[in-house]
Formats: sequence, C-alpha cells, structure tokens
Amino acid sequence: MSNQHIASAFDRDLETIQARIMKMGGLVERAISDAARSLETRDEELAEEVRGRDKAIDILEEEINEEAARVIALRAPTAGDLRLVLSVIKISANLERIGDYAKNMAKRTSILAQMSPVNGSPAALRRMAREVEAMLKDVLDAYIQRDINLAHEVMQRDQDVDQMYNAIFREFLTFMMEDPRNITACMHLHFIAKNTERMGDHVTSIAEQVIYLVSGAMPDDPRPKGDQTSTNPSIAPTS
Amino acid sequence: MSNQHIASAFDRDLETIQARIMKMGGLVERAISDAARSLETRDEELAEEVRGRDKAIDILEEEINEEAARVIALRAPTAGDLRLVLSVIKISANLERIGDYAKNMAKRTSILAQMSPVNGSPAALRRMAREVEAMLKDVLDAYIQRDINLAHEVMQRDQDVDQMYNAIFREFLTFMMEDPRNITACMHLHFIAKNTERMGDHVTSIAEQVIYLVSGAMPDDPRPKGDQTSTNPSIAPTS
Repeated sequence: MSNQHIASAFDRDLETIQARIMKMGGLVERAISDAARSLETRDEELAEEVRGRDKAIDILEEEINEEAARVIALRAPTAGDLRLVLSVIKISANLERIGDYAKNMAKRTSILAQMSPVNGSPAALRRMAREVEAMLKDVLDAYIQRDINLAHEVMQRDQDVDQMYNAIFREFLTFMMEDPRNITACMHLHFIAKNTERMGDHVTSIAEQVIYLVSGAMPDDPRPKGDQTSTNPSIAPTS
Repeated sequence: MSNQHIASAFDRDLETIQARIMKMGGLVERAISDAARSLETRDEELAEEVRGRDKAIDILEEEINEEAARVIALRAPTAGDLRLVLSVIKISANLERIGDYAKNMAKRTSILAQMSPVNGSPAALRRMAREVEAMLKDVLDAYIQRDINLAHEVMQRDQDVDQMYNAIFREFLTFMMEDPRNITACMHLHFIAKNTERMGDHVTSIAEQVIYLVSGAMPDDPRPKGDQTSTNPSIAPTS
C-alpha cells in the first residue's frame, strides 16, 4: 500500500516534468518555425520576437533540472524510474540548444535584411528548418508514447537534413565564386544552414534518449553522419 | 556511525567519478592540441590519430553516466551531494562535445592538406585553440578545487576567444573577396574557427556548473556573448 502510494506520487511528479518537456518542445518548435519564416520574409519584427521568447525556453530548462533533482532526492528512484528522470535532464538540455540555434537564426535575419537577397537560399533553408521541426515534433511524440520505432525513424531522417545541408553548402560556394559581393551574405546564410543541421543532431540525441529509455541501451548502430563537408574532398562546386 | 559509513562510501564513489572526469578532460585537452597542430603542420597522420582516439572519450562519457546513475540509485544522495553527482553528467556531456569538435577539426585537416595554404590562418586558429585548451585545463582545476573565482575568470576569458574568432571571421571574408580561389579553403577554415569558438562556449558551461556546485545558484551575470558576427552589421571587412 505504502509502495503503491510512493509509486503513484512518483508518477505524478514525472507527469509534471513531462508536461514541462512538452511545453518546452512546443516553444522550441515555434521558435524554429518563426525564425525560418522571419528569414524568408525578411520580417525583422518576428525575428525580434523569437529572440525575446528564448528566455522562456531557458527558464523551463532550469525548472526541469530543479524538478528532476527534487524528484530524485524525494523519491530515490532506481533502475528504470531513475533512467526516466535522468533522461529529462538530457532532453531538456538538447531542447535548450535547439532553441539557442533558432535564436541565432533570428539574430542573423536582421543583418541579412540589410544585404541583397541571395537567390532562393532562404526558401531552401526554410525547407530544411521545416524538416527539423517535423522531426522534433515526432521525437517528442516518440518520447511520450515510448515509441522506439518512431525514434529510430527520426534518427534515419536526420540523414535527409544532412543531405539538404550538403546541397546548400555546395550552392553557397557556387554563389560566392560567381560573385564576390555574395560572400558576406553567404557566410551568414551558411551559419544558419550549419546551425539547422546541428538542430537535427540534437533531435537525434533526443531520439537516442528515447531508445535508451525504452530498451535500456543506447542504439547500437553508430549515429548516421551525413554532413560530408568535413570528409569529402570533392566538396568544391562542379559548376 | 552508519551515516558516516554511508558518507565515506559516497565520497569514494564520487572520487572515482571525478577521476574519470579528469581522465576525460586530459584526453580532450590532448585532442584539441593535436588537432590544431595537425592543421598547422598539415600532419594527416596525427589528424587520423585524433579521430581514432575520440572513441575513448565517448566511452568515458558513457561510463561516467552509468556510474552517476549507479551512485544515485545506491546512495540516494540529496541536496549538495545530489547536485555534485548531477553536475558530472553535465560536465562530461560538455567534454564529449568539445572532443567532437576537435575530431571535426582533425577531419578537415585532410581536406585542407589538398588545397593551397591560406596565408597565416592555421597559426591564428592554433592560437585560438591553445587559449581554449588553457581555459579547459583551468576550469577542470576549478572543478576539483571548487574554486569559484577561477571559474568566473575562465568565463571572462571566453570573451577573448570570441574576439579572436571575430578577427578571424573578418580576415576570411577579406581573403575570399581578394581571391575566389580561397573560398573553399576559407569555408573549411571558418568551420574550424567557429567550432573552436563553440569549444570555448562549452568550457564556459563547465565553469557555470562549477559556480552552481559551489554557490548553489547559476551565475547571475548573463553569459558574456562575444561572437558579434550574428549581431554586428559592420562585419564586412574594411579593406
């Protein structure tokens, strides 16, 4: 009876934390979406909003950390329960980093708005951001449902993001070589592309946590690495 | 008597984990140093070694995570003791990321060795890497000594790294505009510079953990942000 009482108190605590994770996830999804849109439409006001809202994401991470520590101290969970609590610390840290990258994207919107547009790039970046946002939504669903298959699927999809990034990287090299006046804008756009690719890596880390949570082991398959710009010497544009 | 027994068992556990953290820190320092040297001297063999050694860093992180979970489950630490155990999880995650960036730097050495050298850049990057390596050494000392002043000092020094990065960024823009044949190499070198700047951010995160550990609160002062390329519109080179 007493054990059951303790167990359900733990479950309630856990639900509270998970609700915060979902709230945090929702804010981060919105930050990605709005940052990418502000970049594409050169909407400096929206970019400013994204920057301002990042504070709420940071505060949620702190609250989740404190709540997790409180639950560990109070309930002394072991085995799977402890794993559950420790995983929220990792997941919230990943969400916070993704939020940071979205904020950084929004910051650069203001600078890019002062430069000549680079042909089609913001649209390509937005497609990439949209894919990352969808992956984030799915990985949070996988977390709540403890759906290991969905988590594996999200990990696989990160390769698409990496391929989008590789294509954009090559495109930027071409633009810069064609016209040196594109160089500064392309450097900023490239930052954004790389940061979006990194967001995908953090979503993948969350997927790994879900797999760890359900199976008790980190995924066997080494994390697919799709950014080939660091290993492929033929990265120079073909045109 | 029993409490004391438990307390000293906890202390022994903690010492074991801290020893692993220091071992991990040593491997990461060496990775930064060797990666930067391989870049400067175009030593592909050394770069390959750095890449190969990253696995040991990843394994240490996993061991530290498992050990921390084991200690929490077994000793049920509370308050400051719990904070201590949770902090090693965060610190080892930061060390793992820094190791990843060093590995990435080493990867790019092989590509850059196939391109014409860009005047003086690897030396500037190595200076930046050396500063990050020194900061890492100091922050790990601050951690072991629970030295909050040293941790604050490390946080301040991250601004120097950010300034070095800003200078290198501007230099690369100049090189690319002067000669489009520099563009591909500069894009890779810029990656390395940005990743080194990010290593500094992760060292700063460790410093924040040390401050949290000693004082029970995260540092008040917002983390100094020195990468101005995301906010300063006058980032285009003056020459």
